[in-house]
Amino acid sequence: MLRTHTCGELRISDTGNRVTLCGWVQRSRDLGGMTFIDLRDRYGLTQLAFNMETNPVICEAARKLGREYVIKIQGIVKERESKNAKMPTGDIEIIVDEVEVLNIASTPPFTIEDQTDGGDDLRMKYRYLDLRRNNVRANLELRHRMAIETRNYLDKQNFLEVETPVLIKSTPEGARDFVVPSRMNQGQFYALPQSPQTFKQLLMVAGFDRYYQIVKCFRDEDLRADRQPEFTQIDCEMSFIEREDILNTFEGLVRHLFKTVKGIDLGELPRMSYADAMKYYGCDKPDTRFEMRFCEMNDLVKGKGFKVFDDAELVVGICAKGCSEYTRKQTDELTDFVKKPQVGANGLVYAKIGADGSIKSSVDKFYDPEVLKKWAEAMGAEPGDLLLILAGEANKTRKALSELRLEMGTRLGLRNKDNFQCLWVLDFPLLEYGEEVGRWFAMHHPFTSPLAEDIALLESNPGKVRANAYDMVINGVEVGGGSIRIFNKDLQKKMFRILGFSDEDAQAQFGFLMNAFEFGAPPHGGIAFGFDRLCSLFGGAEGIRDFIAFPKNNSGRDVMIDAPSVIHAEQLKELGIDVKGEISRGCLIAE
Amino acid sequence: MLRTHTCGELRISDTGNRVTLCGWVQRSRDLGGMTFIDLRDRYGLTQLAFNMETNPVICEAARKLGREYVIKIQGIVKERESKNAKMPTGDIEIIVDEVEVLNIASTPPFTIEDQTDGGDDLRMKYRYLDLRRNNVRANLELRHRMAIETRNYLDKQNFLEVETPVLIKSTPEGARDFVVPSRMNQGQFYALPQSPQTFKQLLMVAGFDRYYQIVKCFRDEDLRADRQPEFTQIDCEMSFIEREDILNTFEGLVRHLFKTVKGIDLGELPRMSYADAMKYYGCDKPDTRFEMRFCEMNDLVKGKGFKVFDDAELVVGICAKGCSEYTRKQTDELTDFVKKPQVGANGLVYAKIGADGSIKSSVDKFYDPEVLKKWAEAMGAEPGDLLLILAGEANKTRKALSELRLEMGTRLGLRNKDNFQCLWVLDFPLLEYGEEVGRWFAMHHPFTSPLAEDIALLESNPGKVRANAYDMVINGVEVGGGSIRIFNKDLQKKMFRILGFSDEDAQAQFGFLMNAFEFGAPPHGGIAFGFDRLCSLFGGAEGIRDFIAFPKNNSGRDVMIDAPSVIHAEQLKELGIDVKGEISRGCLIAE
Repeated sequence: MLRTHTCGELRISDTGNRVTLCGWVQRSRDLGGMTFIDLRDRYGLTQLAFNMETNPVICEAARKLGREYVIKIQGIVKERESKNAKMPTGDIEIIVDEVEVLNIASTPPFTIEDQTDGGDDLRMKYRYLDLRRNNVRANLELRHRMAIETRNYLDKQNFLEVETPVLIKSTPEGARDFVVPSRMNQGQFYALPQSPQTFKQLLMVAGFDRYYQIVKCFRDEDLRADRQPEFTQIDCEMSFIEREDILNTFEGLVRHLFKTVKGIDLGELPRMSYADAMKYYGCDKPDTRFEMRFCEMNDLVKGKGFKVFDDAELVVGICAKGCSEYTRKQTDELTDFVKKPQVGANGLVYAKIGADGSIKSSVDKFYDPEVLKKWAEAMGAEPGDLLLILAGEANKTRKALSELRLEMGTRLGLRNKDNFQCLWVLDFPLLEYGEEVGRWFAMHHPFTSPLAEDIALLESNPGKVRANAYDMVINGVEVGGGSIRIFNKDLQKKMFRILGFSDEDAQAQFGFLMNAFEFGAPPHGGIAFGFDRLCSLFGGAEGIRDFIAFPKNNSGRDVMIDAPSVIHAEQLKELGIDVKGEISRGCLIAE
Repeated sequence: MLRTHTCGELRISDTGNRVTLCGWVQRSRDLGGMTFIDLRDRYGLTQLAFNMETNPVICEAARKLGREYVIKIQGIVKERESKNAKMPTGDIEIIVDEVEVLNIASTPPFTIEDQTDGGDDLRMKYRYLDLRRNNVRANLELRHRMAIETRNYLDKQNFLEVETPVLIKSTPEGARDFVVPSRMNQGQFYALPQSPQTFKQLLMVAGFDRYYQIVKCFRDEDLRADRQPEFTQIDCEMSFIEREDILNTFEGLVRHLFKTVKGIDLGELPRMSYADAMKYYGCDKPDTRFEMRFCEMNDLVKGKGFKVFDDAELVVGICAKGCSEYTRKQTDELTDFVKKPQVGANGLVYAKIGADGSIKSSVDKFYDPEVLKKWAEAMGAEPGDLLLILAGEANKTRKALSELRLEMGTRLGLRNKDNFQCLWVLDFPLLEYGEEVGRWFAMHHPFTSPLAEDIALLESNPGKVRANAYDMVINGVEVGGGSIRIFNKDLQKKMFRILGFSDEDAQAQFGFLMNAFEFGAPPHGGIAFGFDRLCSLFGGAEGIRDFIAFPKNNSGRDVMIDAPSVIHAEQLKELGIDVKGEISRGCLIAE
């Protein structure tokens, strides 16, 4: 090794020892008689001291070292006169007597500090410098720890890690595939997996019993801040189990991760039906760090002459504790918030409950104090609270109120990122109707089993059939989801028919799975967690990008390596494909 | 759980307990009064007993169960009358009183036994049934164990597992890339990584210090039995190290794997220079389970009138211990062996050393007994040995003798697959000359550092420059290789120039790495192990396919899922690409 110690490990007990350190020059202070340099590596910072009086040659040399120079030094560990309690190495410094410059560095385009002056684009272009920042590196260290602990837990539970193929077959169901032209089978394409779904089910048919994989998946979708074309899943499947076994096993995984990575003991995880989640939170992934449950008010508001409420399919409200003193400006802000296109309400009705119990609402014209009191009672409101009420088409109104609820949670400081509330959401609908194309779609995927008691409804009332599916939600974020699978060939065929597949299409696309079901498929089910998202949640961040070493931007570009890029004409020729005329001009590299 | 126990865990101590098991019907024996079924799951086999006298209904039901039916049974654990010491559960059986058929099974296309009657094609088409076979599943269990132990070791050594991107940029250097058309950037393509080489170097620039990943890589090459278009590497990189540190660290990994997975203690690993490997074994990955080193004989054979030897650039031989009694038929076989086109020698000269020390050679006409005696001495041969000698152009002759040496090792039983001999091969040439294109190529890759003492030769005599590179060889198989990297921008530029890149090409393709070197790159180096190959070696197998859950065939096809396949015309349109005219006919699915 070029060093005897890292920059994070020397302590007062090392005083007097001669050591060799390597690292990057973090910062340099020149105090006339002394020059101090903070030397940085992955493990920490160590202060280097250079004395102009006792060793002017080396002190002069030190003064020439620029930021981010890579150096190797030797010297003696000495107790510091003014200790720095904030640094693990803050009790000591190194009196340096040898310096070797291993590599020089140009001035970085942004400062390598926890708070950087680099904008997003610049940070991504120089991601290798951005990754030098402690907080970004800490995110990836967290990710490493999460992966190790996930594997430890699952290994102990007898799960086998099996790698499934990346070059697979395109299926038009679901999101858009990335495809890979085959040179050896010209005119044909592989697809990159959106998930190893069918392979993990085949592993269950193969008797592997318990499978997992931390695996890259791919979706060619238009990107949002929180989506990447390649993302990572913790993908799992089990045989000879029922839903309860999956819930227990993976509740165990999440509990293990919180315990080992964050030192947090989670209690037993609450469960909620999809129907209740929609009714009480307007959303299938409620943030349960705070209550503020919905109160449906149709019975209390209809028939008093207020047309907005009278015409509404649903009138529904929430109670914001302690907000009765909101000013006109504040209630106007909330009205503006709900009217934003992405929220989509037409307006907001509010009622303030004064300290004396008197109620003042924005619809006093239509509702007398006695009625308003009933509203307050229904919502469990107390003096000092603010009622916020939306009305309109049921689904749309629930969605809008869900947004308003989250907004109020944020305003009231109820969404602390260090408070973790986990929740299972159960009994999702199996199917949803796609109006534009006039057919049913699988809400989860076509391999999800209906609840046994709902199978009879499959043909008569598909929309009422509940799936044997489950999502894990943490702080309002869906971090995982799965289902008990269909393992019977006839039921699987019926499912494909309901989804509008002809028998031929189903056979062409999923024949290998349905054929496999002929040879003794066991009852099985599984789950997949979004690993990037889970890591960012543990790291207390909103976005997933800083938990991915080399992410892509919203156009799917890696701006650091400048990919995707044009390729040689010879490569296209070998693959038997052409770039379309108008696109190709100026795009191809000639041979 | 649908079961109380697996099929591998019941013992004599469980006698009398009521249990529930699930699994597949492995085989069924009907002995009139009794029916026995072996029930199989991943964990083992358990014998089920059905008594026609005491419970005729259930015994009749049991007789109807076909092979590979999936069943759930309940019953009482009983000590067996005739125990089976070969099975962990062989002391007990279950007296079954309830049977539930969870799924029926068609007759499998081949037998689900260790020795199957299924050919390769059939096994691959029904891979999910092939994976039910104990030995195939055991291979994948071994792979799981290898991955876990690799991670345990590297985690303890402070390596961080970092996922590098799969959608990257195509580079024409090296093997052919798989490419992925970009929909959002039409006319442009991603490439799938042949290795995370540049990313792991960027992680070193980023100060990650120690990186690893067990990662899928991709090469669009014509396939051989032992190559797959997607394969897995244990990929590692370290900073602030010298070659010695890499060798120690990864010798440690291999020692850890042998110890924990195979229970084998490896001693310190021997090292050999590339020059010695070529001189003594004719090969850069010698099988050192046996000696039989080459003896160069030019000094001993020239000038005696034997034209074949006189004209030869190199005359070189090996001594096959105890083979002097080989018959004419056997020596003819060896002559035929070396004349095979893939071996490429023109003929074989032999000399047999009789028990009395007298020597009989195939070239007695030219060499008198005194000379032959000198040959024997030079080779350290003893009475009873057989000398085998080849002559011709040096490289070609070494290669041919290397093949003959391996053949003799096999014939003499010296290549036991349970004997593991590991070896570091060091100091490879940095460059090799490509005659057809008239330029130098990097033998390892363009980021490999020359040995410090050879840098001066880079311009004057590139062919003489040795790389600071190393391969790990086990039993004649290269399982890993790596190098100390260039970390200086100017040297990297010079390297690209020697490899025939214009500065512009180098910048366009590797600019991001060379730019990164401007901002303080640390000294670094690394290694990658072929994980599929390492697993197959540990498993004592020749091929890698049965250590991959879902491999592709030699045409790059997954015959189980039938990929690659044609895709919808709409998909191509969205991607802005066309399949070329003559290929597209009949290939595309119309919208």
